[in-house]
Amino acid sequence: MIEPDTLDLRQAAQRIQPYVHRTPILTCSTLDRMCNARLFFKCENLQKVGAFKIRGATNAVMSLTTEEAARGVATHSSGNHAAALAQAARWRGIRSYVVMPENAPDVKKRAVAGYGAEITFCTPTVPAREEALAQVAARTGAHVVHPYNDLRVITGQATAALELCEDVPGLDCVVAPVGGGGLMSGTALAVSLLSPATAVIGAEPAGADDAYRSLQAGRIVPQTGPHTIADGLLSSLGDLTFPIIQRHVKAIVTVSEEAIVEGMRVVWERMKIIVEPSAAVAVGALLQSREQFPGERIGVILSGGNADLSRLPWECHPFDAA
Amino acid sequence: MIEPDTLDLRQAAQRIQPYVHRTPILTCSTLDRMCNARLFFKCENLQKVGAFKIRGATNAVMSLTTEEAARGVATHSSGNHAAALAQAARWRGIRSYVVMPENAPDVKKRAVAGYGAEITFCTPTVPAREEALAQVAARTGAHVVHPYNDLRVITGQATAALELCEDVPGLDCVVAPVGGGGLMSGTALAVSLLSPATAVIGAEPAGADDAYRSLQAGRIVPQTGPHTIADGLLSSLGDLTFPIIQRHVKAIVTVSEEAIVEGMRVVWERMKIIVEPSAAVAVGALLQSREQFPGERIGVILSGGNADLSRLPWECHPFDAA
Repeated sequence: MIEPDTLDLRQAAQRIQPYVHRTPILTCSTLDRMCNARLFFKCENLQKVGAFKIRGATNAVMSLTTEEAARGVATHSSGNHAAALAQAARWRGIRSYVVMPENAPDVKKRAVAGYGAEITFCTPTVPAREEALAQVAARTGAHVVHPYNDLRVITGQATAALELCEDVPGLDCVVAPVGGGGLMSGTALAVSLLSPATAVIGAEPAGADDAYRSLQAGRIVPQTGPHTIADGLLSSLGDLTFPIIQRHVKAIVTVSEEAIVEGMRVVWERMKIIVEPSAAVAVGALLQSREQFPGERIGVILSGGNADLSRLPWECHPFDAA
Repeated sequence: MIEPDTLDLRQAAQRIQPYVHRTPILTCSTLDRMCNARLFFKCENLQKVGAFKIRGATNAVMSLTTEEAARGVATHSSGNHAAALAQAARWRGIRSYVVMPENAPDVKKRAVAGYGAEITFCTPTVPAREEALAQVAARTGAHVVHPYNDLRVITGQATAALELCEDVPGLDCVVAPVGGGGLMSGTALAVSLLSPATAVIGAEPAGADDAYRSLQAGRIVPQTGPHTIADGLLSSLGDLTFPIIQRHVKAIVTVSEEAIVEGMRVVWERMKIIVEPSAAVAVGALLQSREQFPGERIGVILSGGNADLSRLPWECHPFDAA
């Protein structure tokens, strides 16, 4: 298993520093009151490509040898990792190939194409996706970068928590959302290394609670039939991410859809920043547990801001000018 | 007339510093490409109460003598100044009284009440509003703080440009929206003082272009029948703000409704921050004039983020969870 002190964390931070933003930490007195805690929001929604995913993708792409990089990089993803890998490949001046389910939202197809990836569509099943990626890799010779079950990716994602720990010392707790576990395991490793007294908590949609069930079962329970607005958190844990989470994450909180939408709306309305539903899961976890952390200093990783502005989870009427 | 070097600018900055945020400067490579310039966004949408107005209101309230402050403060405003004055009064521990038109949006009524103001409703005309305020002031003895035609307010608003000039030296130009001229005149004074080689440009809705017409005419042309989504920019210039703008602002650009909405949407979509239509006017001005500033370093004051999330100026469909 990967141990915190073997992590290439400082080197990853240096490697990606010329490309990504050091995102700001914002605070919000309204949310502090609502959650009965002192919250420090690490704003990865304001990151390049709108999500922390650029950290892991950039760390992976910039770690490749010239030979490994020569034929480009490939992945399967319907979301932020695809855009991030395409952007990182463009920075390095190499090609990128992305396998996407044919039913992915147009806005995501356009975004990934806009960053310069060559897209292959597949039917929206795990076997179809993996077969399509294998074919693309065989045809092009591209180097595959998995969205989360990859040490370079995990280490890249860990740099968000590294910056959070540097900017806000003495946190009692750090909360991050859990999907495939790339951000979660990276966060857990970075916090264990830099601030071992700080607890790390995962936030997961109740409608896609495979990480919660995996921790209960003591083995990876695959995600089947997820039902949640948090479309970035549908993946199952991987064999690299699961044991790190098992060892270093104190608890996984499952979050209702109502709390996710409430968290999203209050961040938009009071913090004036756009978070996607998957990022709002961490806020929803705190809103649900407001009795649990009285007065504590809590770091919250707002993982991304790629929400579809034409499809909002609350009632919306057309605007009439005065 | 107020001259830049007589401005109480550093003192105002110190006076409000314990209460307001030093807001971040964000950049966006997509908007840089779209506008053919290097843009530095001063994010007053991330400010306390969601707008730069807290600067002027706090400077005014904290400048009052104990005697002046004793019976509270009063103003008329349907928007951000009312919320800002109420919040500043609460910080000082004094009462606040706000006259609002009875047809103000519920969201604004709730916000102002939420900051602790006592609200008096009036019919939505200028004479009714002024009469109601005079009555409130006579009844309560409260000290009136005008939304913009007040030197303490202008000086407070100027601190946003002070921070911008400190954080981003060597700007070619600073763009800010123009309503009653509080932010515009404060910005012009601060930039003249701190960075005299930097041009100051005003951005005004074409549907509420009284400042543009006032500069053309060489006298204050009152705003009549405004028609724009930018509901924070409907006021006429004041006798304090007009001469400052006349002397220190290089040009006023009038912005179409289409460009305002485009600016708003691109900031939400690419920068992942929420700006209200009045703030988007400055972005719309740059989108309209993309040939005019090739490669220049431009500071843009994003004045506020108090948009109504249930009424958006683009098509929006309900979200269905997966």
